[in-house]
Amino acid sequence: MKTPVEEKVLAANASFYEFFAQRDLAGMERLWAARAPVSCMHPGWELLRGREAVLDSWHAILTAEDAPPIRFARANAHFLSQEVALVFCDEFLPAGRLLVTNTFVLEDGEWKLVHHQASQTRPETAPPSPRDVN
Amino acid sequence: MKTPVEEKVLAANASFYEFFAQRDLAGMERLWAARAPVSCMHPGWELLRGREAVLDSWHAILTAEDAPPIRFARANAHFLSQEVALVFCDEFLPAGRLLVTNTFVLEDGEWKLVHHQASQTRPETAPPSPRDVN
Repeated sequence: MKTPVEEKVLAANASFYEFFAQRDLAGMERLWAARAPVSCMHPGWELLRGREAVLDSWHAILTAEDAPPIRFARANAHFLSQEVALVFCDEFLPAGRLLVTNTFVLEDGEWKLVHHQASQTRPETAPPSPRDVN
Repeated sequence: MKTPVEEKVLAANASFYEFFAQRDLAGMERLWAARAPVSCMHPGWELLRGREAVLDSWHAILTAEDAPPIRFARANAHFLSQEVALVFCDEFLPAGRLLVTNTFVLEDGEWKLVHHQASQTRPETAPPSPRDVN
Protein backbone atom coordinates (compact mmCIF):
# COMPACT_ATOMS: atom_id res chain seq x y z
CA MET A 1 0.00 0.00 0.00
CA LYS A 2 1.59 3.24 -1.10
CA THR A 3 1.03 6.63 0.55
CA PRO A 4 -0.37 9.54 -1.51
CA VAL A 5 3.04 11.21 -1.58
CA GLU A 6 4.68 7.99 -2.79
CA GLU A 7 2.06 7.69 -5.52
CA LYS A 8 2.84 11.23 -6.56
CA VAL A 9 6.61 10.81 -6.87
CA LEU A 10 6.17 7.45 -8.61
CA ALA A 11 3.80 9.16 -11.08
CA ALA A 12 6.51 11.75 -11.78
CA ASN A 13 8.95 8.88 -12.37
CA ALA A 14 6.47 7.18 -14.73
CA SER A 15 6.06 10.43 -16.67
CA PHE A 16 9.83 10.49 -17.23
CA TYR A 17 9.57 7.16 -19.10
CA GLU A 18 6.43 8.29 -20.94
CA PHE A 19 8.20 11.43 -22.19
CA PHE A 20 11.23 9.31 -23.13
CA ALA A 21 9.14 6.69 -24.99
CA GLN A 22 7.07 9.32 -26.78
CA ARG A 23 10.05 11.55 -27.64
CA ASP A 24 8.29 14.38 -25.79
CA LEU A 25 11.04 16.94 -25.37
CA ALA A 26 8.67 19.63 -24.01
CA GLY A 27 7.44 17.21 -21.35
CA MET A 28 11.03 16.31 -20.50
CA GLU A 29 11.92 20.00 -20.16
CA ARG A 30 8.99 20.58 -17.79
CA LEU A 31 9.90 17.52 -15.72
CA TRP A 32 13.45 18.63 -14.93
CA ALA A 33 13.78 21.04 -12.00
CA ALA A 34 13.89 24.73 -12.84
CA ARG A 35 15.67 25.99 -9.71
CA ALA A 36 17.45 23.08 -8.04
CA PRO A 37 20.81 22.13 -9.61
CA VAL A 38 20.33 19.31 -12.13
CA SER A 39 22.71 16.59 -13.26
CA CYS A 40 22.66 13.40 -15.31
CA MET A 41 24.76 10.27 -15.79
CA HIS A 42 23.72 8.41 -18.93
CA PRO A 43 25.20 4.91 -19.16
CA GLY A 44 28.81 5.19 -20.31
CA TRP A 45 28.70 9.01 -20.57
CA GLU A 46 30.54 11.53 -18.43
CA LEU A 47 28.67 13.49 -15.74
CA LEU A 48 26.48 16.28 -17.11
CA ARG A 49 25.84 19.23 -14.81
CA GLY A 50 23.42 22.11 -15.25
CA ARG A 51 20.05 22.40 -16.97
CA GLU A 52 21.48 23.32 -20.37
CA ALA A 53 23.91 20.38 -20.58
CA VAL A 54 21.30 17.93 -19.30
CA LEU A 55 18.51 19.08 -21.61
CA ASP A 56 20.90 19.22 -24.58
CA SER A 57 21.63 15.54 -23.95
CA TRP A 58 17.92 14.70 -23.91
CA HIS A 59 17.41 16.70 -27.09
CA ALA A 60 20.14 14.61 -28.76
CA ILE A 61 18.73 11.32 -27.43
CA LEU A 62 15.06 12.00 -28.17
CA THR A 63 15.61 13.36 -31.66
CA ALA A 64 18.07 10.67 -32.77
CA GLU A 65 16.85 8.54 -35.67
CA ASP A 66 17.75 5.41 -33.76
CA ALA A 67 16.17 6.56 -30.49
CA PRO A 68 15.63 3.31 -28.62
CA PRO A 69 12.33 2.02 -27.26
CA ILE A 70 12.29 2.06 -23.47
CA ARG A 71 10.24 0.73 -20.59
CA PHE A 72 10.69 0.56 -16.84
CA ALA A 73 9.66 -1.71 -13.96
CA ARG A 74 9.95 -2.21 -10.20
CA ALA A 75 9.89 1.47 -9.18
CA ASN A 76 10.26 2.19 -5.46
CA ALA A 77 10.80 5.42 -3.56
CA HIS A 78 12.94 6.41 -0.56
CA PHE A 79 12.13 9.80 0.97
CA LEU A 80 15.18 11.66 2.27
CA SER A 81 13.04 14.56 3.49
CA GLN A 82 9.59 15.90 2.74
CA GLU A 83 11.04 17.54 -0.35
CA VAL A 84 13.65 15.10 -1.67
CA ALA A 85 13.05 11.53 -2.86
CA LEU A 86 15.05 8.84 -4.62
CA VAL A 87 13.19 6.56 -7.03
CA PHE A 88 14.88 3.27 -7.94
CA CYS A 89 13.79 1.26 -10.96
CA ASP A 90 14.88 -1.06 -13.73
CA GLU A 91 15.13 0.38 -17.23
CA PHE A 92 14.79 -1.91 -20.25
CA LEU A 93 16.46 -0.93 -23.50
CA PRO A 94 17.30 -3.13 -26.51
CA ALA A 95 20.90 -3.24 -25.24
CA GLY A 96 19.82 -4.64 -21.88
CA ARG A 97 18.60 -3.79 -18.44
CA LEU A 98 19.86 -0.76 -16.54
CA LEU A 99 19.64 -0.07 -12.83
CA VAL A 100 18.48 3.49 -12.28
CA THR A 101 18.17 6.11 -9.58
CA ASN A 102 16.00 9.11 -10.40
CA THR A 103 16.25 11.86 -7.76
CA PHE A 104 13.31 14.22 -7.34
CA VAL A 105 12.74 17.47 -5.44
CA LEU A 106 9.47 19.22 -4.69
CA GLU A 107 9.25 22.56 -6.55
CA ASP A 108 6.03 24.56 -6.25
CA GLY A 109 4.18 21.44 -5.10
CA GLU A 110 5.36 19.25 -8.00
CA TRP A 111 8.02 16.55 -8.01
CA LYS A 112 10.77 17.57 -10.40
CA LEU A 113 13.73 15.53 -11.60
CA VAL A 114 17.17 16.71 -10.45
CA HIS A 115 19.43 13.71 -11.14
CA HIS A 116 19.22 10.62 -13.36
CA GLN A 117 21.84 7.88 -13.13
CA ALA A 118 21.57 4.70 -15.18
CA SER A 119 24.05 1.89 -14.43
CA GLN A 120 24.71 -1.09 -16.65
CA THR A 121 23.93 -4.48 -15.16
CA ARG A 122 26.01 -7.57 -15.78
CA PRO A 123 24.17 -9.87 -18.20
CA GLU A 124 25.08 -12.87 -16.06
CA THR A 125 23.27 -11.40 -13.08
CA ALA A 126 20.00 -10.83 -14.95
CA PRO A 127 17.12 -12.93 -13.66
CA PRO A 128 16.38 -15.84 -16.01
CA SER A 129 13.44 -15.43 -18.38
CA PRO A 130 10.63 -17.98 -17.99
CA ARG A 131 11.91 -19.82 -21.07
CA ASP A 132 15.39 -20.18 -19.61
CA VAL A 133 14.04 -21.72 -16.44
CA ASN A 134 12.69 -24.81 -18.20
CA MET B 1 36.35 28.60 -3.71
CA LYS B 2 34.19 26.22 -1.75
CA THR B 3 31.74 27.23 0.99
CA PRO B 4 32.15 25.78 4.52
CA VAL B 5 29.13 23.51 4.00
CA GLU B 6 30.57 22.23 0.70
CA GLU B 7 33.89 21.53 2.45
CA LYS B 8 32.01 19.56 5.08
CA VAL B 9 30.08 17.32 2.71
CA LEU B 10 33.18 16.79 0.56
CA ALA B 11 35.07 15.78 3.73
CA ALA B 12 32.34 13.22 4.45
CA ASN B 13 32.76 11.93 0.89
CA ALA B 14 36.55 11.72 1.34
CA SER B 15 36.06 9.75 4.55
CA PHE B 16 34.00 7.19 2.62
CA TYR B 17 37.04 6.46 0.42
CA GLU B 18 39.38 6.51 3.42
CA PHE B 19 37.25 3.90 5.22
CA PHE B 20 37.07 1.88 2.01
CA ALA B 21 40.84 2.03 1.39
CA GLN B 22 41.67 1.23 5.02
CA ARG B 23 39.06 -1.57 5.33
CA ASP B 24 37.56 0.37 8.24
CA LEU B 25 34.20 -1.29 8.71
CA ALA B 26 33.42 0.60 11.95
CA GLY B 27 34.04 3.91 10.17
CA MET B 28 31.85 2.78 7.28
CA GLU B 29 29.05 1.86 9.71
CA ARG B 30 29.24 5.29 11.35
CA LEU B 31 29.22 7.06 7.99
CA TRP B 32 25.96 5.50 6.76
CA ALA B 33 22.81 7.24 7.99
CA ALA B 34 21.15 5.79 11.08
CA ARG B 35 17.61 7.08 10.52
CA ALA B 36 17.20 8.03 6.84
CA PRO B 37 16.51 5.08 4.52
CA VAL B 38 19.77 3.84 2.97
CA SER B 39 20.44 2.11 -0.34
CA CYS B 40 23.38 1.08 -2.50
CA MET B 41 24.08 0.12 -6.11
CA HIS B 42 27.50 -1.50 -6.45
CA PRO B 43 28.64 -1.85 -10.08
CA GLY B 44 26.85 -4.82 -11.63
CA TRP B 45 24.96 -5.70 -8.43
CA GLU B 46 21.25 -5.44 -7.82
CA LEU B 47 19.82 -2.61 -5.68
CA LEU B 48 20.41 -3.04 -1.95
CA ARG B 49 17.87 -1.39 0.36
CA GLY B 50 18.04 -0.96 4.12
CA ARG B 51 20.92 -0.54 6.54
CA GLU B 52 21.40 -4.25 7.14
CA ALA B 53 21.63 -5.20 3.45
CA VAL B 54 23.90 -2.26 2.67
CA LEU B 55 26.29 -2.80 5.59
CA ASP B 56 26.37 -6.56 4.94
CA SER B 57 27.61 -5.76 1.43
CA TRP B 58 30.36 -3.50 2.81
CA HIS B 59 31.33 -6.15 5.30
CA ALA B 60 31.72 -8.63 2.42
CA ILE B 61 33.68 -6.15 0.29
CA LEU B 62 35.99 -4.84 3.01
CA THR B 63 36.85 -8.24 4.47
CA ALA B 64 37.42 -9.97 1.12
CA GLU B 65 40.96 -11.24 0.62
CA ASP B 66 41.08 -9.60 -2.79
CA ALA B 67 39.58 -6.31 -1.58
CA PRO B 68 40.71 -3.88 -4.28
CA PRO B 69 42.72 -0.71 -3.74
CA ILE B 70 40.61 2.38 -4.40
CA ARG B 71 41.02 6.11 -4.89
CA PHE B 72 38.75 8.93 -5.98
CA ALA B 73 39.05 12.26 -7.79
CA ARG B 74 37.08 15.23 -9.08
CA ALA B 75 34.52 15.40 -6.25
CA ASN B 76 31.81 18.06 -6.57
CA ALA B 77 28.64 18.70 -4.62
CA HIS B 78 25.10 19.74 -5.57
CA PHE B 79 22.88 20.79 -2.68
CA LEU B 80 19.22 19.80 -3.11
CA SER B 81 18.25 21.41 0.20
CA GLN B 82 20.07 22.49 3.35
CA GLU B 83 19.97 18.85 4.46
CA VAL B 84 20.45 16.81 1.28
CA ALA B 85 23.47 16.86 -1.04
CA LEU B 86 24.69 14.82 -4.00
CA VAL B 87 28.44 14.34 -4.36
CA PHE B 88 29.72 13.29 -7.78
CA CYS B 89 33.18 11.83 -8.26
CA ASP B 90 35.34 9.42 -10.20
CA GLU B 91 36.33 6.18 -8.50
CA PHE B 92 39.47 4.36 -9.61
CA LEU B 93 39.71 0.61 -9.13
CA PRO B 94 42.07 -1.87 -10.82
CA ALA B 95 39.18 -2.82 -13.14
CA GLY B 96 38.80 0.77 -14.32
CA ARG B 97 37.15 4.08 -13.61
CA LEU B 98 33.64 4.32 -12.21
CA LEU B 99 31.33 7.33 -12.22
CA VAL B 100 29.79 7.74 -8.80
CA THR B 101 27.03 9.61 -7.00
CA ASN B 102 27.16 9.57 -3.21
CA THR B 103 24.02 11.05 -1.64
CA PHE B 104 24.30 12.58 1.84
CA VAL B 105 21.79 13.81 4.42
CA LEU B 106 22.43 15.91 7.51
CA GLU B 107 21.75 13.87 10.68
CA ASP B 108 22.46 15.53 14.03
CA GLY B 109 24.71 18.07 12.33
CA GLU B 110 26.79 15.49 10.45
CA TRP B 111 26.66 14.52 6.79
CA LYS B 112 25.71 10.86 6.54
CA LEU B 113 25.68 8.64 3.47
CA VAL B 114 22.24 7.44 2.30
CA HIS B 115 22.90 6.20 -1.25
CA HIS B 116 25.97 5.10 -3.21
CA GLN B 117 25.75 4.34 -6.93
CA ALA B 118 28.81 3.45 -8.99
CA SER B 119 28.41 3.21 -12.77
CA GLN B 120 30.88 1.62 -15.12
CA THR B 121 32.37 3.90 -17.77
CA ARG B 122 32.97 2.80 -21.33
CA PRO B 123 36.70 2.84 -22.12
CA GLU B 124 35.93 3.72 -25.75
CA THR B 125 33.96 6.83 -24.79
CA ALA B 126 36.72 8.27 -22.63
CA PRO B 127 37.81 11.71 -23.80
CA PRO B 128 40.80 11.44 -26.14
CA SER B 129 44.20 12.06 -24.66
CA PRO B 130 46.23 14.88 -26.21
CA ARG B 131 48.23 12.27 -28.14
CA ASP B 132 45.11 10.85 -29.77
CA VAL B 133 43.99 14.25 -31.01
CA ASN B 134 46.98 14.71 -33.31
